[in-house]
Formats: sequence, structure tokens, C-alpha cells
Amino acid sequence: MSEPRDKPLTLWGGRFTGAPAEIMRIINASIEVDRRLFAEDIAGSRAHTSMLVAQGIIPPAAGNAILSGLDTVEAEIAAGTFRFDPALEDIHTHVEARLHELIGEPAGRLHTARSRNDQVATDFRLWVRTALDRLDGEIMALQCALLDKAAAHAETIMPGYTHLQVAQPVTLGHHLMAYVEMLARDRGRARDCRTRLNESPLGAGALAGTAFPIDRFATATALGFAGPARNSLDAVSDRDFAIEYLSVAALCAMHLSRLADEIILWSSPAFTFIRLSDAFTTGSSMLPQKRNPDAAELVRAKAGGILGALTGLLAVMKGLPLSYAKDMQEDKPPVFAAADGLALSLAAMAGMITDMTPDEAALRRAAGAGHATATDLADWLVRRLGMAFRPAHEITGRIVRLADARGCALEALSLADLRAIEPGITEEVYAVLGVENSVRSRTSLGGTAPERVREAIAEARQRCLSQPKLG
Amino acid sequence: MSEPRDKPLTLWGGRFTGAPAEIMRIINASIEVDRRLFAEDIAGSRAHTSMLVAQGIIPPAAGNAILSGLDTVEAEIAAGTFRFDPALEDIHTHVEARLHELIGEPAGRLHTARSRNDQVATDFRLWVRTALDRLDGEIMALQCALLDKAAAHAETIMPGYTHLQVAQPVTLGHHLMAYVEMLARDRGRARDCRTRLNESPLGAGALAGTAFPIDRFATATALGFAGPARNSLDAVSDRDFAIEYLSVAALCAMHLSRLADEIILWSSPAFTFIRLSDAFTTGSSMLPQKRNPDAAELVRAKAGGILGALTGLLAVMKGLPLSYAKDMQEDKPPVFAAADGLALSLAAMAGMITDMTPDEAALRRAAGAGHATATDLADWLVRRLGMAFRPAHEITGRIVRLADARGCALEALSLADLRAIEPGITEEVYAVLGVENSVRSRTSLGGTAPERVREAIAEARQRCLSQPKLG
Amino acid sequence: MSEPRDKPLTLWGGRFTGAPAEIMRIINASIEVDRRLFAEDIAGSRAHTSMLVAQGIIPPAAGNAILSGLDTVEAEIAAGTFRFDPALEDIHTHVEARLHELIGEPAGRLHTARSRNDQVATDFRLWVRTALDRLDGEIMALQCALLDKAAAHAETIMPGYTHLQVAQPVTLGHHLMAYVEMLARDRGRARDCRTRLNESPLGAGALAGTAFPIDRFATATALGFAGPARNSLDAVSDRDFAIEYLSVAALCAMHLSRLADEIILWSSPAFTFIRLSDAFTTGSSMLPQKRNPDAAELVRAKAGGILGALTGLLAVMKGLPLSYAKDMQEDKPPVFAAADGLALSLAAMAGMITDMTPDEAALRRAAGAGHATATDLADWLVRRLGMAFRPAHEITGRIVRLADARGCALEALSLADLRAIEPGITEEVYAVLGVENSVRSRTSLGGTAPERVREAIAEARQRCLSQPKLG
Amino acid sequence: MSEPRDKPLTLWGGRFTGAPAEIMRIINASIEVDRRLFAEDIAGSRAHTSMLVAQGIIPPAAGNAILSGLDTVEAEIAAGTFRFDPALEDIHTHVEARLHELIGEPAGRLHTARSRNDQVATDFRLWVRTALDRLDGEIMALQCALLDKAAAHAETIMPGYTHLQVAQPVTLGHHLMAYVEMLARDRGRARDCRTRLNESPLGAGALAGTAFPIDRFATATALGFAGPARNSLDAVSDRDFAIEYLSVAALCAMHLSRLADEIILWSSPAFTFIRLSDAFTTGSSMLPQKRNPDAAELVRAKAGGILGALTGLLAVMKGLPLSYAKDMQEDKPPVFAAADGLALSLAAMAGMITDMTPDEAALRRAAGAGHATATDLADWLVRRLGMAFRPAHEITGRIVRLADARGCALEALSLADLRAIEPGITEEVYAVLGVENSVRSRTSLGGTAPERVREAIAEARQRCLSQPKLG
Repeated sequence: MSEPRDKPLTLWGGRFTGAPAEIMRIINASIEVDRRLFAEDIAGSRAHTSMLVAQGIIPPAAGNAILSGLDTVEAEIAAGTFRFDPALEDIHTHVEARLHELIGEPAGRLHTARSRNDQVATDFRLWVRTALDRLDGEIMALQCALLDKAAAHAETIMPGYTHLQVAQPVTLGHHLMAYVEMLARDRGRARDCRTRLNESPLGAGALAGTAFPIDRFATATALGFAGPARNSLDAVSDRDFAIEYLSVAALCAMHLSRLADEIILWSSPAFTFIRLSDAFTTGSSMLPQKRNPDAAELVRAKAGGILGALTGLLAVMKGLPLSYAKDMQEDKPPVFAAADGLALSLAAMAGMITDMTPDEAALRRAAGAGHATATDLADWLVRRLGMAFRPAHEITGRIVRLADARGCALEALSLADLRAIEPGITEEVYAVLGVENSVRSRTSLGGTAPERVREAIAEARQRCLSQPKLG
Repeated sequence: MSEPRDKPLTLWGGRFTGAPAEIMRIINASIEVDRRLFAEDIAGSRAHTSMLVAQGIIPPAAGNAILSGLDTVEAEIAAGTFRFDPALEDIHTHVEARLHELIGEPAGRLHTARSRNDQVATDFRLWVRTALDRLDGEIMALQCALLDKAAAHAETIMPGYTHLQVAQPVTLGHHLMAYVEMLARDRGRARDCRTRLNESPLGAGALAGTAFPIDRFATATALGFAGPARNSLDAVSDRDFAIEYLSVAALCAMHLSRLADEIILWSSPAFTFIRLSDAFTTGSSMLPQKRNPDAAELVRAKAGGILGALTGLLAVMKGLPLSYAKDMQEDKPPVFAAADGLALSLAAMAGMITDMTPDEAALRRAAGAGHATATDLADWLVRRLGMAFRPAHEITGRIVRLADARGCALEALSLADLRAIEPGITEEVYAVLGVENSVRSRTSLGGTAPERVREAIAEARQRCLSQPKLG
Repeated sequence: MSEPRDKPLTLWGGRFTGAPAEIMRIINASIEVDRRLFAEDIAGSRAHTSMLVAQGIIPPAAGNAILSGLDTVEAEIAAGTFRFDPALEDIHTHVEARLHELIGEPAGRLHTARSRNDQVATDFRLWVRTALDRLDGEIMALQCALLDKAAAHAETIMPGYTHLQVAQPVTLGHHLMAYVEMLARDRGRARDCRTRLNESPLGAGALAGTAFPIDRFATATALGFAGPARNSLDAVSDRDFAIEYLSVAALCAMHLSRLADEIILWSSPAFTFIRLSDAFTTGSSMLPQKRNPDAAELVRAKAGGILGALTGLLAVMKGLPLSYAKDMQEDKPPVFAAADGLALSLAAMAGMITDMTPDEAALRRAAGAGHATATDLADWLVRRLGMAFRPAHEITGRIVRLADARGCALEALSLADLRAIEPGITEEVYAVLGVENSVRSRTSLGGTAPERVREAIAEARQRCLSQPKLG
Repeated sequence: MSEPRDKPLTLWGGRFTGAPAEIMRIINASIEVDRRLFAEDIAGSRAHTSMLVAQGIIPPAAGNAILSGLDTVEAEIAAGTFRFDPALEDIHTHVEARLHELIGEPAGRLHTARSRNDQVATDFRLWVRTALDRLDGEIMALQCALLDKAAAHAETIMPGYTHLQVAQPVTLGHHLMAYVEMLARDRGRARDCRTRLNESPLGAGALAGTAFPIDRFATATALGFAGPARNSLDAVSDRDFAIEYLSVAALCAMHLSRLADEIILWSSPAFTFIRLSDAFTTGSSMLPQKRNPDAAELVRAKAGGILGALTGLLAVMKGLPLSYAKDMQEDKPPVFAAADGLALSLAAMAGMITDMTPDEAALRRAAGAGHATATDLADWLVRRLGMAFRPAHEITGRIVRLADARGCALEALSLADLRAIEPGITEEVYAVLGVENSVRSRTSLGGTAPERVREAIAEARQRCLSQPKLG
């Protein structure tokens, strides 16, 4: 980087003349954004060309020239030697213009039986499909990091919070597994989105289909689509796939924001539940003990931006009459920004989880505060003394108030004290008053008992890792 | 209705004392909102009670008393004789309090091995599941209306627009089928959402599971869930199902807003493509010819509100640490509002489509304007004269400019005129210059040729109507 | 309350016939929502009537009959004896229909030189204006609560956080005053919004103005507007005032969400910085020590809903051609919901702040952790030893590392230890190492020194409380 | 441009190693975004340096060295010779690092009594302030374009629409003036936002203020601020100015989207009200008559993106505890994107308005359709025959139905026909039935009568153009 030559400076720096042609060129150009579609654009053109030849629509020689020229264009872009020119508004124009330079007349046959409208819809679907495939892997990597950390802490006791108040003891493994479940849903949504988007718009033409004897199944197959989109007007007007992708991304980012918030809390001196690694904190030479959880904060924030991207694209599409309108060109910036933000967030989160060091003593200490086993006591009264839940609940409240008044833990109350409140209580009650026993007792399916957590980890590892790779 | 006794008037009308207890009661109360969950709450309690009896956790007599009491409560609510009391904050409290009045002590056993947290999560999932089932039927009803209208107009020629400029002729049937496809994706998303949400939170307890020997599979099965949710912390902290429902609703509402916008345009005097029925317009005794498409405008607007609901709930959940937080109580207003708005929009749209009368002459006239068959001419040059697409495109442009200069349609140019521009042109070209021929020629899959449209209608009717009913 | 007769039950309960007329009535009706405008509607009609009489457009006798009839209608609504009828779609129709029942023929003259379009725009502006006036008072009440608490704790030392890590000591008074500033900006925005909206649409007619010799200044003045809106098309098409109101509300709610989040953190056992009053917590008889900050969580969540309301209304208005469209009827639900949510949030927050009890010892203890005075040490090196900031920063880092290695506070290091790192350090340095001294030293304007905080409180009290009441 | 070396390719192209350090560097780096702040950063450093010297906090020689070094840095960046290095995370680091290379030790004194937190808040406020100043000018330029076009068409009759149905005739000048009013409100909001943001955070330090004897008034004045921000914690935690800017931008963009939608409608063959210039349409050599209003569509779409930016940043800030958190770094992308999109939209819109050619005949023709003068007839019955409005309304309806049945315009009905319905009607009524007379008669303030429109144009020209330039 040697010069801040970005578009904003062009806009603001006085080089923006205000002439209509200049304004139109800038507002209309999408090349700065859609150059990311180059590989998809070339793949689409290859499939289209091969089909045109197979159907006898263009001569084989022209087809071969085009395919060979596309190889060159792709190689040039990959090698960084391709010349991008702001005067050529988009990636499609760039590719075709260069192709013409390279092979001459046959380049003019590439666009037979195709329109910019079905072409861009195809390109962008392919890009989003790849983004979904990558997303699946990125989420899985975070699930792996969580599973490993959960396995190492299946018995590590920590406070379970509701309302950020200590409610019942749980294990750290159990807590982390909640995120594995959220992420499993995210992967499910990504798969559903992929299945739904995987229809080929190619062949829809400008909007009405074409009179050329094209084979839409052939291009669909060549591009990995399950088949052709069924209605040509819909095929060029539809951006559901982009919006559904953003919905998937927004939900996943929301999940990450929750985990990020917990990491920020847990690494605060108020909690000291975990220590983040140096890699994922920033500090200063002056305050070496200060470990700012910047990465977690950025992950938390990025959920806001992705939510904004989803909102924005839905608003763009609202109320648009059919078929294609230029408004739809504004589909790419939010999707690209969301994809980048989410990929970074997932990678950063996987790194943070892997690298973080829980402070087991601090976690255990916090779990023991707040009479976290009061519900265990109430449940004991129900189970052993046959009380109804509501009165058992009431009696427990009186015992807790007594412990509070004494300033001691529940298990520090004498049996006499307990029996003064409820004569049926026996020595056996002490077994449920400790946090270890409490945790061990919650053996219901999905519960926090270490044996359940270990089973859940094994099952999730199997389930999450055995899914066939997307793409 | 005899009195505007709504909450706002309470707030604004001076009866809001400002006392802490009063403020807390109002902000905390959800009964005005969550009373809609009464059927789901009672269903959940029934399943829980039966399981408690089956597992020997509560005595059969208590179970029977509870079940019988729940029947009474449900009947009272259904009959409108149930007394709602603002002092009882939510529907769960109302049901349990009334149960206690009705059956006394056994009512206190209902909440054994259950918490408000898993209870409310279960209730709301059940409600959203039912909303999805209804949504599927509501969308299908609109698809039926569209299919019927499309079948009646599979050959009705109209202009196909891009950028709201006439691009190529299409048929009205083809155009309407684009919406059938959009709605099919909406139904697919609803089904995926239903499948994903269909896990039972019941038995997750407050957050950690329970030590009672409950059978979560039994309650899950009784409530129609595919099985229990796998992690108790996640089960009480998760509102994905509500957000995914709102995503589904927002996309569907966006589709409706596009159709609504077209209805507004088409019924405007600038287009006069359709006449809406009296039922779905408002007018005035003074301007009887004025047929305001109010219903369509409201449908278009409701997409905005539903987008806001989605945005709002995602923002509510962003950054919340586990597990349950009271913030989550704000999940219901956006979901209820979106469900109501969408149900109304779908019903209104189905009515408008069924009742509307296309003006075939006006549609045909508009399709013939604007040299809409220019691409047919270019394609003819490619197909018959073997030209590459780009030069054919250029020659077509010259012919169109000639017609424009003459102020006539393409087909009104003489063969001599055409051959002066491109000597290879023959009489045969006139076959592609009329809009009927153009439409008939677009026989590619998904294209606008009436035979393709009829096939698409038949296929869609089969596909859309044969899906097993949800729920 | 004796029956859940709300619209949703109508929709879902099977009583929704699906007949076009029924669907249209329900989607079109706004009376459930706009009945809240009754007072504004009647005020607008009064002003319009008096002007019509004064201009000689209607006879005085008719005018008097109308005015007297409007009094009756208003009294009936206020008394709760007015009969609302779902068949009369909106509040305007209700008022006029009842007026006709009461006074007969003269009622038909009320709508002379007026249209529903300018009428509803006037009503809703008046409502939003009143909402802004109330908002100003509600925010001021919270400012007062904060000022009082800040004054009581101008010297109470607490940790100042960045990244939720302890950075430098501050005082609780100083911290609370940050919110007084945020709220002052909110009030400024509310005032600006009020000034901008305070133009009268009345007299704009349907969209084009009128040929009757009306006096728009007279009606504007009677209704407290600064003057008439300048363009009749804009006057009936504009909903900026509602969107700007929602922007103001969304920012204010965002501020409250930050304070709410701090209250939730501070009352968590991890912090124990404050104790909320019983009035603003919920607990249980079983866990008396559990004080769930439900009110704070609800305030935090409501910011999400208000954000959604803003988003939704902007999306509704996007892309609407002039002038009035029925879409605009969807302006009221988001505004009413936001106004209610924000009023409750402000009241709850004022109550929480007033009632909360800071734990000064806990705050002081937390402030002393984490070498929070390290920057004071670095600044001392700059000020007393003339070092540049960057090397001073580096030396401080080495001293902090030494204290960390020793496991002691900075002030517990011996002078010899300090001089081993930087020989220029003198006994005098200890004066800056304690948190009290640190806080006292930050005397820059807006800084945390108690004297500055006291001045700021006095200034803000003067500034915030002396503003003339809106409305 | 010779290589697509954008961040996305870095992310996706395989060069993203997944190593923690690499992930952290990428997620943490803001230099690609915040380099746009370079001028503001240097301006802030200049003001701070001069103040430090004036207050005796750093020696004059050091101050001079810094100032001279900053000049060099700024010149290098402006000249494009400055080396940006991805390893230096942000613009502040870049400037200070280069300063150190240039002047050595004194560079280390620049950061005395300053923190990154108050520095970045200052920089960004300055940027947003400049953006507001530019916005004011950009909006004014569009107002001028509208005023000129309105002046040229103060008498050009067109249909006034409600619900996109013809309601009453208006003039094109009157219609365009509605947008001048909307934009005037936008400018008012921009000014209010500027006034509110114009407080200097500089001197707030990290969060607590400083013990150095700084002069915050001096730096505030040097940077054009009205004074220092009053609370140091608030000063570093506040992003209201960015959100309020986005609110202003979102409303302005919404206004532009409405005008854009009208331009799209009006240039459609269904309306043909205007012809856009070549500069602001795209076409094709094949369809020369096709003038796609791409620029208008992009303007309409950009309102969606800006709405998303607002939503996103509000969501980022929601629930953040004080003071600075890294989340706030995500404030710049939405603001920069919105500022760029809005500037382009305004420029494109001004160009489109200036260049567009209304088709007066088509506008007049459309205005005459649909009995647009029916309300004039009703008003005449009230004014001349003394009828109440409601019966006059009813009689008009009968006359319109008669004209409809005859298939003629209202003014084509004979007097006998009219008197058969209402015997009081006289020859004089014909004066109000023509659209020219209708338009001329609407002389109420803000009405569409050409004399009112001319007055409004003159008044607005005076009001809009005479405002002192911001900045």
C-alpha cells in the first residue's frame, strides 16, 4: 500500500467533477464490488459455451476459442496481471472485453442466448453457494474448538446464571455445549439455504426465456446446480438466496455475540473465570495485566453490522415490481461485508476458545455462592417427603432466609436448625446441598450431570463432524 | 366495545401513578400479550402432568385432578368466562392460580420438575409451530388463487418489464407464476423452520435439567415434538425459532409487497391493466370511478413492519449472556404482530388475485409498444444468418432506430428497408416481429411460451398442492 | 378484564370467515389503533370549525352546534360511555358519525374545506408533539434521579472501565453524570424534533389545497402550531415527524439500554456494586437472596423493539410516490409502541436509580485492583522528571510488572524498588499511586475529580431543570 | 488498478493462514477504513500540540518539531507517497510512527495528556462534522435544481395522485416543491446534528480526564468546536453523533427514494411524463428507445443500505457498558458507506432533475382523465348553493356516475343533465370543471394555484439559499 487511493478519497478529494457523466459512471459502476465474482463469472461462461456448442448453437471452433480465452483471462486475474479499468462498469464487461482482445470475433458469440440478467443471477448464486460451503466448515471448526474445551471441562463446576444472578451450578462443559447446539442449528440453516438456492437461473435470458434450443439442464449440471430455476421472470428477479444467506449469517453472528459477551464478562476482573491468550487480547506495555478482549468485542459488534446488512437488503427488495431492476445491484455489498465479517468472527472465536484458560478455582468459588442448591433442597423435600412442589418451595425459602441471616451456606446449617423448620428433614439432605452433588444429580436428558455432558459431547462430535462436506 | 381501556390510555391518561410498584407491575406484566398462549400452556401442562404420573413422580389422583382442572380452565377461557387479572403477571400464573382455586392442593404438584423457563419456551415454540402450519395453508391458498388466474391467462400477452421499461412480451400467466415460485420457497423455508424448531425444551428446568426421573421423550411425543432439545441451557436461552419464523415471514411479506406494488401500478390509470373488485378497493360516493387499492397498499406497508419486527428481535437477543434473561420476554410482541400482519396480507392478496379482472386489450396494447421484439430480431439474425450475437445486436439497433425515426412498429418496416440495413434478411423475419410469435417462440424451460406456462402451471399445481399438510 | 377479545383471537379463533368483505374490513380498520387520537381529532375539528365560521364558510349556528356536539363526544369518550363499533373503520369516522347522531345536518358541514388526508396528518402530528412534550418531562425526571444519586456519590470511588477491564479510578457521581449528558442530548433532539414538526398540515386538503377562503394561520395558531406547512402535497405525504420521533426514541432507548446493562452487571454477584430495591427486582420465596433485575432487563430489551419500530417505518416510507398512500396508515403502531415502551423504560429507570443502594466498600475495593493508577505514575514521570510520554509509559510498564511479580499493589513497592527501575523517582510519587489521590488529581474540565464532579452536577442541575417546559 | 488485491481476496484466497496472530491482526486492524480520518487526526494533533506548548506541558522546541513533522506527514499522505503498512493497525499509529521516523524523540511527547480514546472520538467527530457541512451543500444543490425546474413548470398541469389514482390536478412546479420542503427539513436536521455534535472530546483522556493542566477550551476553539464535552466518561463512550448523522442520512435518502420512484414511474412507457437525459439512463445499441433509469433505481436502492447502516450502528451500541469498548470501532464503516451513498445519490438526483424534460402534453392529458375536478364541483355546490359538505359530496357522486355512464368528461355534460340531478346548478359551474380552473382556484396557502406556487418558489429560494454555509 502506498497511497490512499480508495473511492472515498475520489469522492471527497475534489476529483469528483460533478459532471453528469462522471456522476453516472461512479454511481453505476460496480466493478470495485463485483470483481469478487470473477471466478463464478468465468465458470458460468464456460458452462454456457460448452452447452451452446453441444446444442449446435455456436460452432465448435468458436466454442474452443472462447474456452481457451476464458482460461487466459482467469489466469491473468489470478496472477494479478489483469488490467481493471474503472470505465468498464462491471466484471462481466471486463471479462468479455478482455476475451475480445484475446480471441476477436468468436468472443461475440459467447453472449448468444444469454442476458446480463441471468448471467449476474447465476454468478451471484454461485458465489453465495460457495460462501455457504465455507461457512459450514468455519462453523464446524468453531464447534470442534468448543467440543474440545467442553470435553476438558465436563466436570468443571461453574455458576449457571439466569438474569446474570447465580441460579444453579452447572459445568463449563455443559455451558459450552449450549453453543455447539446453536451452531448446529446455524449449519442446518446454511444447508437448507444452500439446497433452496441451488437452482440455475442460466437460460432465463433477460426475463422471458429464449427461442434458442438451449439445454438448461446441461448448464445447471455443469455448474453443480440441482436443476434449472422453473420460471424465467422469477429467476432474474429473485434475490431470496442473498437475503436468506444474510438471515443465516445474522442468526449465527447473534450467537457469536452472546458467546463474545460471555468472554468479555468472564475475562473481566469482576469474574476472572478465564484468561484469554495473548494472541486474542491487546494490552499495553504500561498495563501488562490489562488484557483487553478486543477480538471478542469486535465479534460482538459485527453482529450489529450483519443485522444491518440483512435489514438493508430486505428494504432494497421491498415493493420492487418485476422483473429485474437496477436496485438489485445493491445486493452484493451487504452480502460481501457480512460474509467477511462472519468468517473473521468465527475464526477469531475458534481461536479464543481454543486458547482460553479457565480458572477452575474461581469458577467453583462463584458456583458455591448464592445458595445455588436451593432448588435441590426443594426437590429433595418433594422427592423424599412427598410434599407438593409449592409448599416445598416455601419451606426452602425459610431455610435460605435462615442461612442468609446466619451468613452461612446452606450446608453449614445444623440438622436441628433444618428440622426446626421442617421436622421431616433427615441427615440425608446434606447430600444434595453441595454443588458437586447438585451437578451430579441433574441426570435428566440434556442436564448438567457430567455423565450427560460427556454423552452429549460424544453425540455432538459424531453428529457435527460426520456431516458430509458441503460443496 | 364500549370503552377505550387499552394500556396506552392507562399510561397516558393520568392513571399511571409513577409509584415504583405500579411501574414495575406494568413493565413486568405480559398477560396482555401472552394470553394468546393459553392453549399451548395448557397443552404443555397436560403432557407434563401425564408424564409425572407415569414416572411415579406425582400420585395418579393428583394427576387426574390436575388434568380435569386444566380442562375446566381451558373451557372457561374458550367460553370467555375466565377472569383475567392484571395483578397476575402472565398466562402461566393465571392458569395455575385458577387451577388452585378449582382443585386446591394438587395444583401445587403441577410445577414439580418444571420451571417457568422451560415452560414458556415450550409454550412459545408450540405457538410458533402452529403459526407455521397455518402459514403453510395460507400461502397455499394464495398459490391456488395465482394458479387459477395464471391458468386463465396462460396466453394473455402483456409487456415484460425490466427497469419498468418494456423489454420483451410475456404472458400474464407466466408473470403470475413467478410469484407461485417465490411462495413455494417461502413454504420451503416455513417447513425447514418447523423441522428445526420441533424439539421440546420441556424438562430443561430452570437451566440445568432436573434430578427427578422425568421422561423427556414422553412429553416431547405427547406435544408432537420430534424429540427433546439436547442441551438444557440452550433450551431455555434459545429464541432462534422465533427469529427464524420472523425471517420466513419477512421474506414472504417482501414477496407480497412486490405483488402489491404491481397491483397498485396495474390498477392505476397510467396502466389500467387490471380492475380490482369492489371488495378490495375503497372509493367514495363522490368519485365512484376512483378505486383506491387500499388493501394492496396495506399489504405493501406491512412488509415494513415485519422487517422491523425481525430487526428488533435480533437486536434484543444480540449480546445476551446465558441462560434465560428477562429480555427474552420481548420475543412475543414482534412475533404476534408479524403473524397477524402476514395472515391478513396473504388472505387479502388471495382475495385480490381471485377477484381481479385483467384488461386483456390494454395488456396486449402495452406489450406491442416499445419494439419489444427487438431481441427476437437479433436472435433471428444469429440463428438464420449465423451472425455472432454482438454484431446481430448492433444491426438490430440500426433497424430499431429506423422504425423509431419512421414512428412505426418493427413489423411495419418493409423488407426493402430491412435489407438496406442487412441484405441477408428475408421475408421469414416477420414471423418473429409480432408479440404473439415472440411469446410463442420462447420455449426454453421456464420460458414464456404458453405451452411452457401451461406445463409449469400443471407441475406447480401438483407440487404445491400435494405437499402433506403441516401440523 | 373478562374475555380475551383481542384482534388476534378473532383472527386465529375461527371467527375469521375469509370472505373478501371481512378480510378487507379487518386489514383496513385502524380504529383499534387510532382511537388513541380521539382528543387530537376533536381538537383539530374544533379549530377547523371556528375558522370556518370566522371566515364565513359555514354559518355561526352550524358552527356552534358542531362545537357543542364535539364537547359531548369528547366527554363520552373520556367517560368510557362512547360506543366504538368495528364497522366504522377509524376514529375520524367514529367522531363524525356520533356528531351526526347528536346534532344532525350541521355535522355534514364540519368536513367543508378539509380532507381525511390533512385531518389525519394534523391529528397525528398533535399526538407526536404531545408525546415529545411528555418525553421531555420523563427524561428530566430520570435526570433528576441521576443528579441526586450523583450528588450523593460525588466522592464514591469506583473502577472506571474500558473493555470491561479496570482502567482508572473514577467516582460513581462522575459515572452517573455521563448518563445525564446523554439524556441532555436526547432532550435536545426531542426539542429539535418538536420545533420541526410544529407546522400545521390543516388546510392542505386532499393534496392540492382548497378554493375555500380558509385561514390556515388561524387553525395553526389555535392548535399551537408555529404556522402552516408550506406545501400541500408535502403536508399530506410527510411522515418525517413520526420517523424523527422514532429516531429520538431509539437513541434515548439505546442510552437506557447501556445504563440497564450496567445495573444488571452491578447487581450481579460478580460485582455486587449496587443493591436494587425490592420494588424493581423479582425474586422468589425460595431464593430470597436472588434479586433478578427484571426491570433493567426489560429496559435493555425495549431498545431492540424501538429500533425495530424505527427500521420498520423507514422501510414503509421508502420509495412511496406522492402524495398520500394507504401505506402511511401503518405509521401509528410503531410510534405508539415506541412511546409506550420508552415512557415505561424511563419511569422504571428513574425508579431503579432512586431506589438503588451502592455498596461503597465493594466499589472502592474493585477500584483498587488492577494497578488502576498506572497512568498516574506515567504522568508523574512526565510532569516531574520531564520525560517524554512514550518512555514514561515504558518505565511504568516495568514497574507494574514488578508489582505483579511481587503480587502487590503499586504503592506497596519500596522506593528502592522504584528507583532501581528509574533513579529519578522520589518519595513524592506515592502521592499519585493511591486511588483517592488519582481521582482527586484529575481536575481537567469534565474530569473525575470530586470538585469537578460537583461543579458538573450544579451546572447540569441548572441547565437541565431550567429549560422551559415543552408544550 | 492492476490487481484485485482487496481484503476479501486476502480472506478467501487462501492467504489467510488461520493462525491466531493473523486472525487477530485482520479483525483488529482498522487502517483500511480509518485512513480516511488522516486529515482530522493531524488537525487534532496540531491543536493538542499547540495547547501543550501554551500550557507549558511540553517545551516549545518539541512542539515546533511535532508541528513541522505533522506538516510533512500530511503532505506525504496528500501526495500519495506515504507508506501504509497493514501491520500498523490504525491511522493514529501510522501518523505517530511516521512522525517518530521524521523527528525522533519529540514525537514521544505528542501523546502527553491524551489517550487513543479521546483522540479517535475527536477525529471522528471532526469527520462527521465535515460530512454534515458537505451534506448541506449537496442538498442545497438539489434544492436549486428542483427550484429551477419548478419555476419553469409552475403552471404545467399534471395529475395529483393519492393511492396512485388521479385525485385532483396540480402543477408540476407544486409537486417538485414538495421535495424542496422535505429537503429543507433534512438540512434542518443536519444543522441540529452539527450543533449537537460540536463539542470537543479532546482532553477526556482514556476516560477520567487528566492531571495535566490542559486547556480544553483552547483545543476546542482551535478545532472549531463550540466548547469541550462536559463529561470525560461520556466523551469517550458517546457515538450519538454518528447515529444521529445516520438518522439524518436515512431520512434524506428516504426522501430521495420517493423522488427516484416517481422518476422511474414517470419515465416508464405507462406514464411518459418525462424524458431523462442520456447521461442518466442506460440503454443499448439494440433498443435505442429503451432508456433505463438506472441512476434513479440506484438512488432508490441506496436508501435501503443507509437504513441498514443506521440499524446496524444502533444495534452495535445497544447495551454496551461504559466507557470505551472496542465494539465502537465498528462505527466508521456504516458512516462512511452512508456518506458516500448519500453524496452520490444527491448528485445523481440533482443531475437527473436538471436534465429531465417533462412532456407537458402527456402530463396535461393525464390530469384531465378521471374526473379529477369532482371535488371542485362538490365545493362549488357548498359555496354557491350553501349545501352542507356531505350532501354536496353525494350529489357530486351522482353526477360523476352519469358522466361515467355517458363515457364523457364532467364538463361535457349538459346543464340540463346537471340540473336534472341538482336543480340549483347554473352555467357558472362549468368554470370549476376544467383542470386549469381547478388548479387556479386552489389559492389557499400552500395550494397548487400557480400564483401560490410562484410565491412558494420565491420564498423557498430565499430561505434555502440564504442560509449561512455550514463549516
